[in-house]
Amino acid sequence: MIIRISEIEIDSADLEEYISILKEESEASVRLEPGVISIYPMYQKENPTQIRILEIYKDKEAYDSHLETPHFKHYKTTTLKMVKSLKLLDMEAIDEESMPAIFEKLSENE
Amino acid sequence: MIIRISEIEIDSADLEEYISILKEESEASVRLEPGVISIYPMYQKENPTQIRILEIYKDKEAYDSHLETPHFKHYKTTTLKMVKSLKLLDMEAIDEESMPAIFEKLSENE
Repeated sequence: MIIRISEIEIDSADLEEYISILKEESEASVRLEPGVISIYPMYQKENPTQIRILEIYKDKEAYDSHLETPHFKHYKTTTLKMVKSLKLLDMEAIDEESMPAIFEKLSENE
Repeated sequence: MIIRISEIEIDSADLEEYISILKEESEASVRLEPGVISIYPMYQKENPTQIRILEIYKDKEAYDSHLETPHFKHYKTTTLKMVKSLKLLDMEAIDEESMPAIFEKLSENE
């Protein structure tokens, strides 16, 4: 599984249009792509130009194929100029299986 | 619905113990509390001491009652000293119904 939190800041003048395009894209992805487990978009209540998206893909193939869909390409090209900043955080879910990887990484960094 | 992203930084010396307590707490919450829709804990791959939790509660009552459960109280008291920083971000899901609220808030802040 590929898990990511996208942290996106949108120009406030573009927010209404951005959200409408993002909503369309996330709905199409979950509906049309079996490998897209979740694209869950949110905005921060205190600061609505701060967007967060929890994205979960079945595997690398599902993610790569998502990038080639018409709905993703439409989202990417139409919103490019609206995005003030973009951070993609690769995450791991916290469960038994993933725990050894955490501590291996920690000891490497000590 | 109450949606929140908790951004938590844990002392690296405590991370193994913290994650084990968090995992137990999140599993118990989802299993025992019908009003807890999601407590989805993750850590950042590049920086495992950075924890993110997507929390979704049915309503304010479900959240208030969550705070009174033995499993939450155990989590809170045992991990208090392990937490280097904690930010609770109140979020809204992006959907048709929530959109008017965004733009109202934006115009208030202009």
